[in-house]
Amino acid sequence: MDPLQQLRVWMSSRGLKVTIIPSNDCHFDEYVPARSQIRAWLSGFDGSAGILVVTASAAALWTDSRYFLQAERQIAGRGIDLMKLKMPGTPSIPDWIKAQCAASGTSPEEFIVGVDGDLFSYSDFEDFKGQLAPVPMVTFSDPFDSLWSGRPAMPDAPIVLHREEYAGRSASEKYHDVISSLGVQGCFALFVSACDEIMWLMNLRGGDIEYNAVTLSYALLTEKGETLFCRRESLTPEAVAYLASQGIEVLGYDEIDAALDAVSPQAVRIVSNNCCSVNKYNILSKAGRMAPDPTVGGTVAMLRSCKNTIQSEGFRRAFLQDGVCWVKLLKFIYDNYADGALSEYSITQKLLEIKRGSENYCGESFEPIVAFNANAASAHYSFASEEESARIEGGGFLLMDLGSHYPYGTTDTTRTIFLGKDDPTEEQKRDYTLVLKGMIDLAEAIFPAGTRGCQLDILARGPMYATGKMYFHGTSHGIGQWLCVHESPQIRMEYSPVTLQPGMILSDEPAVYVDGSYGIRTENVIQVVPFAETGYNSFYKFDTLTLVPIDTRAVDYDLLSPHQVQWLESYNKKVYESLKDLLSPQERQWLLTWSA
Amino acid sequence: MDPLQQLRVWMSSRGLKVTIIPSNDCHFDEYVPARSQIRAWLSGFDGSAGILVVTASAAALWTDSRYFLQAERQIAGRGIDLMKLKMPGTPSIPDWIKAQCAASGTSPEEFIVGVDGDLFSYSDFEDFKGQLAPVPMVTFSDPFDSLWSGRPAMPDAPIVLHREEYAGRSASEKYHDVISSLGVQGCFALFVSACDEIMWLMNLRGGDIEYNAVTLSYALLTEKGETLFCRRESLTPEAVAYLASQGIEVLGYDEIDAALDAVSPQAVRIVSNNCCSVNKYNILSKAGRMAPDPTVGGTVAMLRSCKNTIQSEGFRRAFLQDGVCWVKLLKFIYDNYADGALSEYSITQKLLEIKRGSENYCGESFEPIVAFNANAASAHYSFASEEESARIEGGGFLLMDLGSHYPYGTTDTTRTIFLGKDDPTEEQKRDYTLVLKGMIDLAEAIFPAGTRGCQLDILARGPMYATGKMYFHGTSHGIGQWLCVHESPQIRMEYSPVTLQPGMILSDEPAVYVDGSYGIRTENVIQVVPFAETGYNSFYKFDTLTLVPIDTRAVDYDLLSPHQVQWLESYNKKVYESLKDLLSPQERQWLLTWSA
Repeated sequence: MDPLQQLRVWMSSRGLKVTIIPSNDCHFDEYVPARSQIRAWLSGFDGSAGILVVTASAAALWTDSRYFLQAERQIAGRGIDLMKLKMPGTPSIPDWIKAQCAASGTSPEEFIVGVDGDLFSYSDFEDFKGQLAPVPMVTFSDPFDSLWSGRPAMPDAPIVLHREEYAGRSASEKYHDVISSLGVQGCFALFVSACDEIMWLMNLRGGDIEYNAVTLSYALLTEKGETLFCRRESLTPEAVAYLASQGIEVLGYDEIDAALDAVSPQAVRIVSNNCCSVNKYNILSKAGRMAPDPTVGGTVAMLRSCKNTIQSEGFRRAFLQDGVCWVKLLKFIYDNYADGALSEYSITQKLLEIKRGSENYCGESFEPIVAFNANAASAHYSFASEEESARIEGGGFLLMDLGSHYPYGTTDTTRTIFLGKDDPTEEQKRDYTLVLKGMIDLAEAIFPAGTRGCQLDILARGPMYATGKMYFHGTSHGIGQWLCVHESPQIRMEYSPVTLQPGMILSDEPAVYVDGSYGIRTENVIQVVPFAETGYNSFYKFDTLTLVPIDTRAVDYDLLSPHQVQWLESYNKKVYESLKDLLSPQERQWLLTWSA
Repeated sequence: MDPLQQLRVWMSSRGLKVTIIPSNDCHFDEYVPARSQIRAWLSGFDGSAGILVVTASAAALWTDSRYFLQAERQIAGRGIDLMKLKMPGTPSIPDWIKAQCAASGTSPEEFIVGVDGDLFSYSDFEDFKGQLAPVPMVTFSDPFDSLWSGRPAMPDAPIVLHREEYAGRSASEKYHDVISSLGVQGCFALFVSACDEIMWLMNLRGGDIEYNAVTLSYALLTEKGETLFCRRESLTPEAVAYLASQGIEVLGYDEIDAALDAVSPQAVRIVSNNCCSVNKYNILSKAGRMAPDPTVGGTVAMLRSCKNTIQSEGFRRAFLQDGVCWVKLLKFIYDNYADGALSEYSITQKLLEIKRGSENYCGESFEPIVAFNANAASAHYSFASEEESARIEGGGFLLMDLGSHYPYGTTDTTRTIFLGKDDPTEEQKRDYTLVLKGMIDLAEAIFPAGTRGCQLDILARGPMYATGKMYFHGTSHGIGQWLCVHESPQIRMEYSPVTLQPGMILSDEPAVYVDGSYGIRTENVIQVVPFAETGYNSFYKFDTLTLVPIDTRAVDYDLLSPHQVQWLESYNKKVYESLKDLLSPQERQWLLTWSA
């Protein structure tokens, strides 16, 4: 029996007419472990975003434009309709469910919708419930251990200490920072379900999710102290000793519900970042008063985003090593590509070899992207082997987006280089230069306290608009320290109320994608630092952390302002000066020549 | 007995412990008629924004930083505490009321707060109520006709027709546009309480509020037709005939409550722009289901904001006349100021004389601002006479912000000119040039569909930030057609979800204010127009409507890009070419010389 049919049998046994399966797990982080990829198991569609809705006789999958082609291919033949989000005529999930109800002839009150109460946030659950009424919505608990034969086990990666010499602050100090920032007095309970917030809070790191140094866990902070809920057996002795030294109690991952239930009725209950599952929310709110997380962007998340001096030094150290690895890789490419010997795959293998030789290397911070010409224009290009990947032949743009974890910092750098004997076309030069122009303009921004990322976004996007082109992803994301490479805050066209604050580390990555031809993206990482205090306000600017030379071969200097030309020249010079003593004589000479 | 004491006696007779008096009237527009300036009558403070809270023994006034000095002066000696908004330690109104309750020894349940239910929007009322609980909140109806002896009467300005040759669309067409944009099917009721929305809907104009061509009115639209509630006796015969021809029923201003009460129970009830008083909301929602206004920014407001072709031509005609008036005024100033004969007052008188000579002139669109040197740095500078105003002596910056109504368009132009024999200082040149640079950068923006004003704001503000200076007002506001000079949408640092759409007309007015020295503001009016349709998106740009030369004497050309220098030169050339045939030979010659 195929997975959908198994689910339907189970639904029928429970009296459910509809089930909604989202993409996330119970921690609402960006990535989920394999055992939580239930929508992929049921539908075949394994993209990062999609919601599957199943009734006794129908099923439909909602996803966004990034995934239309992939989803269509993966769900083919399974009896699932593709629902293209934001396209004319696509019904909302509640409208579709109501239409199914009407078609089935069941009365709305009996067309019961069931969802896993650990996979719906409280606010999403309430929204759906309001929109579905009079169709009722109920919760159930994960039934897939029995339904999904061969379901991957819970991850079991060790949970290790993140040393204070890198974190810059003890777990106990962070606990007090959080309380002071929450502004609570007396009896309270802060419930944290985001794994990366917990890692930061406790100075721990895990490995449960590829590229993301987190462990599946919960945390509960009260005025009496804090408790970590995780797989105790995965904690290293060093981590156990540290937690004890910080007065942190450790309980099992499954003991969280009982702990939420036991919160003092007098305690003001706060859900970190205003996000937790409806199941947990209901337990927590049963016996006492809920209060919102008072900090825009989340109290814990905002403290985590503003890197302290020691963390900032650590990131700079990581970017020095990142620069050295890039120079080695670039030199390898230029030394070898001319005879057609290289492929996207072999370049990726070489870069991993180089990275593994880098001191304190803790692994890549995301799946490396190496894409030649048209491959770089497709939003989700990847390959599994030499054969699937493209050979570097005939010249053109090679886009590489690479990042690594070190205990003291995480890197994320994109460079697009122009290879081959031919000159770039006028359009290629214009596009390359306008991307670079946007990257520089954002990096050079000066702005007052209170500025939000979405207010600066136009600086990176604006230069390209005059060509009638644009990119459809965010300009920027925060970067965690040996944690998640995507961290708040984000700089996107969409609104976010989070303001940029000193210490925040962000990517700066404008781009352009020309279908069937090429993709260009240039990404540096920048940090918010003080600029000036005046009678008008506090002003901030960005410091650039990335130390990787920028290819000037496709630059059209007529499109850059004199200031931008100067920025580019001094940037490549700074890269050389910063890296030269860390390179071999050959590498040094190569860099000097290439980026001159 | 002073007004506050009178209010307290009345409160006591009604069993109220607290009253909250806001600034707005029951239409929630920006300006209110004299008889609705109750807070000013009670407190003495006549600034545009402030909330007065009165108990039996205390009173406090909340206002923002623009008004701290003025409020302090005006409320002195009246037993009212000044509460400075957004300053550390300033309590919120609910917190202050609760503290008064605690101090009085009254139980919270008996510390009844009363507000005029016509002056609180439904959402504000609900917010306050939630924050005040367990202190109860009740509504009352305007008691001030009996309390306020000498209260100004209802305005009685005539209500005239706004001709279709200027409006470009009949009232009946607009009615159908609204229904189509609301997306309602079947039985509905749209209640409109914003006077400028009603004027636009019905092709009428009034004169109840200085500088704003509105009449106090309500409107109700249903699937059967529309009804206007206003002073019927103020309608001109032409307006009466037009309304009849469009099938619009006219009832008295006071008949709105009965009409709201009589809305069919089956009708979906919508409040335009999601804003109406709690009193009206309660009547309307009593017998049927409410639904939100589905359009971000408001269905009626968004239709009104996007000017059609005929309106756009009308605005261009108005700006031609505006340009001619400005040239006459500038020539007058330059011909006469050298001997110290001019004052801010006499310049204002001259400009009004010039404006009155302009064909079809319907009055100023706001109180003219003429401010010399340090006077331009103060946010609310005004003068009532020659003696109160400054004489133009010794040279420096003269800032003039002027606008007029014509039946076909409304203007709003600010120019800052540098007068005198001395050269501007380096700081003056830098500040003047950076303001100009920001104005040009916003005017030259190209952006995709879906862009919000707050995303472009940095273009106008950014150049100044490098000097550590900034301005604290919005960069931009929409402009009504012979209506309110401040119309949605706004471009501000603060977030607004309204997107910029073709046809919208906006101001572009970056500025800088140096306390005690000078103020510089340069304001053009721009319109969103199509730029390109590409495979990526629809792109828009701005057309500049204003035709007033820009003074180049204080420009530091080193701070402008070559493109900006070219923009400035061709702008002043375009102004000359557009105006030359409308000027006298002397004026033409003066303009040619001055702006060369």
